[in-house]
Formats: sequence, structure tokens, C-alpha cells
Amino acid sequence: MNINGKHYRTVWVSDNGEAVEIIDQTKLPFKFEVVALTTVEMAATAIKEMWVRGAPLIGVLAAYGMALGMKTDTCDENLQRCYSLLIKTRPTAINLKWSLDRTLAILQNTPPAERRKIAWSLAAEIADEDVGLCEKIGQNGADIIRTIAQKKPAGSVVNILTHCNAGWLATVDWGTALSPIYKAHESGINVHVWVDETRPRNQGGLTAFELGSHGVPHTLIADNAGGHLMQHGEVDLCIVGTDRTTATGDVCNKIGTYLKALAAHDNNVPFYVALPSPTIDWTIKDGLKEIPIEQRSGKEQSHVYGINPQGELSWVNTVPEGTRCGNYAFDVTPARYITGLITERGVCAASEAALADMFADLKSNFA
Amino acid sequence: MNINGKHYRTVWVSDNGEAVEIIDQTKLPFKFEVVALTTVEMAATAIKEMWVRGAPLIGVLAAYGMALGMKTDTCDENLQRCYSLLIKTRPTAINLKWSLDRTLAILQNTPPAERRKIAWSLAAEIADEDVGLCEKIGQNGADIIRTIAQKKPAGSVVNILTHCNAGWLATVDWGTALSPIYKAHESGINVHVWVDETRPRNQGGLTAFELGSHGVPHTLIADNAGGHLMQHGEVDLCIVGTDRTTATGDVCNKIGTYLKALAAHDNNVPFYVALPSPTIDWTIKDGLKEIPIEQRSGKEQSHVYGINPQGELSWVNTVPEGTRCGNYAFDVTPARYITGLITERGVCAASEAALADMFADLKSNFA
Repeated sequence: MNINGKHYRTVWVSDNGEAVEIIDQTKLPFKFEVVALTTVEMAATAIKEMWVRGAPLIGVLAAYGMALGMKTDTCDENLQRCYSLLIKTRPTAINLKWSLDRTLAILQNTPPAERRKIAWSLAAEIADEDVGLCEKIGQNGADIIRTIAQKKPAGSVVNILTHCNAGWLATVDWGTALSPIYKAHESGINVHVWVDETRPRNQGGLTAFELGSHGVPHTLIADNAGGHLMQHGEVDLCIVGTDRTTATGDVCNKIGTYLKALAAHDNNVPFYVALPSPTIDWTIKDGLKEIPIEQRSGKEQSHVYGINPQGELSWVNTVPEGTRCGNYAFDVTPARYITGLITERGVCAASEAALADMFADLKSNFA
Repeated sequence: MNINGKHYRTVWVSDNGEAVEIIDQTKLPFKFEVVALTTVEMAATAIKEMWVRGAPLIGVLAAYGMALGMKTDTCDENLQRCYSLLIKTRPTAINLKWSLDRTLAILQNTPPAERRKIAWSLAAEIADEDVGLCEKIGQNGADIIRTIAQKKPAGSVVNILTHCNAGWLATVDWGTALSPIYKAHESGINVHVWVDETRPRNQGGLTAFELGSHGVPHTLIADNAGGHLMQHGEVDLCIVGTDRTTATGDVCNKIGTYLKALAAHDNNVPFYVALPSPTIDWTIKDGLKEIPIEQRSGKEQSHVYGINPQGELSWVNTVPEGTRCGNYAFDVTPARYITGLITERGVCAASEAALADMFADLKSNFA
């Protein structure tokens, strides 16, 4: 999507073909800076330290990380080392594993002398696939928004609540949860987005940045506010992303998603989850019991980043000195609270049967 | 309660009897500063600008505000002027109206020459009453905590989640939601408190400050985290306060309370609301339709206060320049999601019948 009128992806190969360039998302939404990653170690750091975030983008960058690792040494041992280094960077998002397993399998069946070239073309292929998936998610989700708009008085605003950032910054382009919103906006539907701040890492700022850059009306709110807005008819639908979806339709997404799903359920507000199929983990059925939930440093909770009165990017410690802080990165929303899953193939119920029906070919790989 | 071993209330009359001193809660939990209020206008500002906050404390300070107003002019016109000035400072908390109506009625029936003296003694009486109510709430709520502790293996920790600050800083002493926790802790029960950060104004910092000062174990978490913790059995009960409770048991409290009640309901976690009876508005039955929800400046959402890297109290703007922010201060939790109301007279169901039964004498005043 566009920033200041110029189209960007979140990850691309440098002009000399030797590095992978990313937008440093730890500086967003305050500063737009591009970082060149030249080694697999840098790619691993970029994922672990959240220079990039968002399950689809993590998967793509992991594939590019393998390509960077093949630059210097294409032997079996280094192939395995690169895989091991990248797989342990983040524990929750399934795309990481999906992308790395795919890359490893192909490279293992490629002669070492050709691995470097194949790794780069494979990463590019995975990136392009992600763009394609996201654009289709956008088309399918926009149909839902259009249907809701048509039930309201002509010219009414459709209010959509989203949590975290599942926009183009979380993917290569378009986004997942925000892709239907961009598509609806571009087709002339009056949309307004309630942007959850998304503590503790304030990814709502990224969403506000994206939407603002693209001209989509939005209001940033505390994570606490969504229930109240739904009680008062101020939310027509919710769309969120997911870091891992079980074969039964349970959705693991940014911490706090579950609370919004409960509120949507209590107020008859449709609650949709947008996902590309690589986010589905066909091997598990119980999200609550089987998905590991990453715990991160309490400092991410206590220390808040932003622009200080001098106009510089800085932080403030918001809690009394010595306060212990918990930091749970994700939660699981049981399938029963989800109205539908918006995928690249269409919209289906969040159920084992509906997922199996829509993705029979993919599921069979795990049978 | 104690700060650095010294007992404080949140409001008291200065040594010369001419001013009302408060702890400036806009500086907490970072700096402990006492401010002397010398005029009714200052008292109104202190409430409006949240130098003090918390429904019970607002009510008490309003009574002291009337006393400050009577210092210079005790005529009927000034009495009405002081009432009008104070009543419009905050729209949601019912204690403000309760306290001011009580004070106005008594002063109107007092000869002007005696109003000054009566106003001061009345404010002191309301303050002392609040302390008594809160201590009884603590005793009644501690019984609930004790019962839960007794059902767990000996020596287990009882995990209690609370939202916002309904501690002694929100009252004159003891607090409402935290009073049972202080009483349980003092009686030797192993308690641990999950402290919701409570965006956008981060009152969780006040709760952490209180609990830390008193030696009660606690962990501060994002408002998003409570649902996940409840799903995983990490919360034994929730206790929150309330700014206004309807005659039917609907509870208006800090924004986000409703989301925690939904999660508690979904996970069979008991959800209690602690309240002194002046928080009950006997004139209304439907919290969602009848309680006005204060909307505050979006700057409270975007600008986060804390201690900067130089050790100074400062702020950072956490959102992209120009982002519109919403700031809804309260929400309403329907009675059906509340396990019980912890009052100074005992614990009762959140229902019209139970409230009417426990407070027949109070309700009859509004019949």
C-alpha cells in the first residue's frame, strides 16, 4: 500500500540482490526507516525483536532469512543451522513453521550448488503468494462489508472494529483483517474503523498509521472501549487477524481478541477473522490446550514508547518502580464466538467441517 | 492506609482549619505531593481535573468543597452557586450528587450564620462515614476470599483480578474493591492481585502503588490479558468497584469492566462488585439506557505519562500525529454478569429484589 503516495511492500530484495530490506516497525508509527538485513542472524533478530511482526510477514521474512543463510554456505549442516536459528525466534505464529518447513524440504532436495539461487526465488515466490492471498481475502471480506452497508440507510457509515495490526504491515501487502477494509473503501463504501490501541505494544498505532496513510477514516480507542461501543450500536462488525487457527476454527490472535469476541457475541455483532490458509494449523484441534502462548518481557508493558515533548522518540515508565508486570502476547478465541473465517477461497464457518470442506486438499497433507 | 509506614487518608483538613489537603493523584504513582485547596473553585478543579478520583472520594471532596465555599459567603445565593459549580464537575459518579444533595438540604435548613461551621462538620461526618463503610465492605468481602482460599489446597495463593483503582486512593481510606483484599491479606490469606493497567488513564499504577506500599503481592497486566488468565485458571475471583449502581444491580464502572465480567462469566470465575450504598442510584433501573457515560479528551488516550529516561515525570505521544482518539470513561456491566454485590451490610445478589431487601430503608427515600 502507499506511504506518502509511494507504493511499498514490507519486505523486498535490495538493488544489489545481496540483502533483504524491511521497514523497521519498531520505529513506526513515528519514524519511517528501512533496514537492510545481510545475514540469517540479522533476519532472526529482526523477527525475534519484532523489527517485523505479523504472522504472514514473519513467514515471508523467515524464507528470505534462509536465502540469506545460503549466501555464504549451502551445505546440509548450514541449511539445518539456519532453519534451527529461525524456527525458534517466535513460538506462536504458525506461518513461521509453515514457511520454514516448505523452504527446508525444497532445499534439501536441491543440490547444494543450486540452493542459493533456489532459496531466493522460493522466498520471492512465498512473498508474491502472500500478496495474492491477502488481496483475495480483501475481495471476499469486502463482500461482507458491502452486504452490511446495503442493510443500513444509504450513505451510512459502516463501523468496523479491529484489534492489533493485521494490515499490510503485518503481511507483504494488503494485510489480512484490513484488506477487506481497503477494498471496501476503494469501492466507495463509507467505512470508519475503531482501532484498538492494543496494549502492551500499541500496534493500534501501526493500524492508525496505515489507515491514515491510505485515507481511511478511523478513531483510536483504548482496548477497554470496544464492549461499550458494541452495547451502544456503534460497531457493525469486527474483523481481526490470527497468528494460528486450529483445524476446528479456534483462533489464536493478539492478546485481548477473545474479550472483543465475547462482547461481539453478547451484542449480536458479527465477529470475523481474516486469514490466509497458511495460518491454519491442521495438526491441532484445541486452541486453548495446544497453542503455546508467548510470554514476553514485562518491560514491554511498563515502558511505553512515543514522541516526547522535545519531538524525539523516547519512552516513559508508567508503573511504580519495582512493579512486576506480566506480558502475555496472545490469547485464544474459541470457534463458537466467531461468525466466520474470511479466507482467500471464500468465507466459511469457524468449524472443523467447514474448514475441511473448503481446504480438503491442504488438510489431506496432514491426514 | 500506609505510605512509607505513615498512615494517610486521601483528604483531610489542614492544621489551620482553613484548607482541605489532598494527595495530588495526577502525580501518583510517581510522586507523592499534597495540595492544599482553599476555595470551592479549587475543589471543583480538583474533581474535574482528577487531582482526586474515585466515586466515594469525589463525594467526600464535594462536601468539603461546599465547606470551602461557605468560608467567605454563607448566603443562599452562594450556597446554590457552590452546589452548581461542584455538581457539574463529573457526570457519571452518583456519590457526587448524593453528597451534594445531602449537604445542600442540611445547609438550606441551617441559618446562614451557622452554615460555615455546620458545613465543615458535615464534610468530616461524610468522610468518617465513608471510612466506616469501606472497612465493613472489607470485612464482608474478606469472607468471600477466605471461603475460596479454604477450597484450595492449604497455602495456595488466591488470585484476584481487579480493574482500575477502587482502593483507598479512590475513597478516604481502605477502598472498596481493594478493602476485602487488604483485610484478607492482614488475616494471613495468601493473596495475589492481577492489576489491570486500566487504559487510558493507567489507574492500575495507583493500584500497584497502593498494594506495593502495603506489601500485597501483585502483577500489573495489560487490560487485554484478563480473559486469557481466566481461561487458564489463573484467576480465582474478580473484585471491582463501581461509580454508579442501578436499583436493579447494573454496574457502571471504569471502561473495560464489562469485558472482564464477560470473561469471568464465560469461565465460571466469580465476579464481585464492591460498593458503599451511596453508590446506588435508586432512581434508575436500566444502566445501559439511563447512565450518562462521560467522554473525555482524546489526549488522555494518546499521551501517556510516566518517568522518562532522565527520571523526570513526562509524557510521550503514542499515536501518529493527527490521529483522532476516542475516550469513553465508563461502561455498564449488566446485573446478569455479576456474582454478587459486596456492601457495608453484607453480600447480596445483583438484583432489584436483593438490593431492595438489603436496603429497604434507603430505597424507601426514593419511592
